[in-house]
Amino acid sequence: MIVMAEHAGFCFGVKRAVDAIEEALKHNHEVWTIGLPIHNPQEVSRLEAMGLRVADNDGMIPSGAKVLIRAHGEPLEVIERLKARGVQVEDMTCPFVHKAQDMAAELSGKGYHVVLLGDRNHPEIRGIMGHAAKPSEVEVVADEHEAEGITRRNRIALISQTTQREERLSRVAGILVRKASQLHICNTICKATAERQESVRALVRDNNTDGVVLIGGKSSANTGKLRDIIISEGVNVLWVEDEKELEANIEWLKDKKTVGIAAGASTPEWLIIKVRNYIAAYRGF
Amino acid sequence: MIVMAEHAGFCFGVKRAVDAIEEALKHNHEVWTIGLPIHNPQEVSRLEAMGLRVADNDGMIPSGAKVLIRAHGEPLEVIERLKARGVQVEDMTCPFVHKAQDMAAELSGKGYHVVLLGDRNHPEIRGIMGHAAKPSEVEVVADEHEAEGITRRNRIALISQTTQREERLSRVAGILVRKASQLHICNTICKATAERQESVRALVRDNNTDGVVLIGGKSSANTGKLRDIIISEGVNVLWVEDEKELEANIEWLKDKKTVGIAAGASTPEWLIIKVRNYIAAYRGF
Repeated sequence: MIVMAEHAGFCFGVKRAVDAIEEALKHNHEVWTIGLPIHNPQEVSRLEAMGLRVADNDGMIPSGAKVLIRAHGEPLEVIERLKARGVQVEDMTCPFVHKAQDMAAELSGKGYHVVLLGDRNHPEIRGIMGHAAKPSEVEVVADEHEAEGITRRNRIALISQTTQREERLSRVAGILVRKASQLHICNTICKATAERQESVRALVRDNNTDGVVLIGGKSSANTGKLRDIIISEGVNVLWVEDEKELEANIEWLKDKKTVGIAAGASTPEWLIIKVRNYIAAYRGF
Repeated sequence: MIVMAEHAGFCFGVKRAVDAIEEALKHNHEVWTIGLPIHNPQEVSRLEAMGLRVADNDGMIPSGAKVLIRAHGEPLEVIERLKARGVQVEDMTCPFVHKAQDMAAELSGKGYHVVLLGDRNHPEIRGIMGHAAKPSEVEVVADEHEAEGITRRNRIALISQTTQREERLSRVAGILVRKASQLHICNTICKATAERQESVRALVRDNNTDGVVLIGGKSSANTGKLRDIIISEGVNVLWVEDEKELEANIEWLKDKKTVGIAAGASTPEWLIIKVRNYIAAYRGF
């Protein structure tokens, strides 16, 4: 038997951005993204085969070409620089990330010292930072221990990376409330990450699964987190990028009676379906 | 030897209000407060002997008379009602409490759902509530467990009673951050309460005190808290309202070599000095 995680694969923001890239490829000669549009090599290959070009930085994109800003977003100066050079910009920043960017702009404009909770090397954080009035003054904390290092101020705004855990935002808020007369917290956490994690937990707890096939890019951090959850529940996991990788590990599948399927937020539906169909055909489910 | 707690007696806001009452008594025929101006019977008696009259409610105060709003503050409608009746109002609300009232007015006016952390029966809380756009919609929580019961909203403002502990505000903030997209926290906690508590702790830890004479009204909640701290440090405490009560318990003092003196935020300096002088004279310190 095959059981699917309730929430698996593309989140709303990623699906929206990928759909826009496909649509743009139908109508434009040259379509670019800055950096990989998504942490999934199979999906990137599919889009590149349709004509997508991936630039390392905004300077590589020729004037007159079309660029789609990926779901992670970009700093404001990058978007302004592109427009100034006559590049056609279509902003597919995830609306949840956009909200965080807008709050950074609004609150820094009102004189709040902006603190971001998240990973300082993540493009989403660099993008949010790049929407504050003075990006260089924005501070990033990874957790409550780093929050202890924030200097006391009259007004502090705390904004979260959309994929953070609410427990951590809660703990950081508890620290910063002592460091400001006015603390404005924007709970910009999106439910998609938690939903996928809870779905995987429910998948292995509510069904008597002998193992879970987890589908996602090997460099996808959110897929890695799903693997950790499955292992912590004492269930066997096989992490594959596609059905070919599953085929190469076919021994794993042989003795499994009930197989769960889960997928990260960057895994496209067509890949999930391919893997599912492969299992069904192989086992005669 | 006598050792004094570093911070003891009147806090800034109480001293300011009492000084204003004394000043008003010099120049006015009738001076009123609504409720006791301070939780200290000796100080209230002294002010009443100078001519102060204490009303149970604003309706008792005659038109043309002068009323001083005590440090705790009053709801806006009470002040407006008094002014409409031609009562002369001198607002001696503690500036820290005033800040909390202003924030309740401002944030409720901007559409925030106002949540207060504190004691719902305390006049300070009723006063802050009475400055919100719609006082009946304001919710009061005593701690993080009550905060769990707050319904999810788009925008919540959390404002603290000035005498709350920061640890508790921190824990309540950690709960409410999950219940609002935008949580605005006003850390309106005044240092006076914590300073008096820390001073008492330092008094018994840093000095080899054989016992502490604690001076304060028996109905003063903050004095009661100081007693609890002294007991929890394993030190003997004698809680007296004045030197007469100390005299009645003179046995307690006999064997003490090093005596600490502490006092609540509602204890006037003259009472502290009287008790101190009594001990010094008795023991020949």
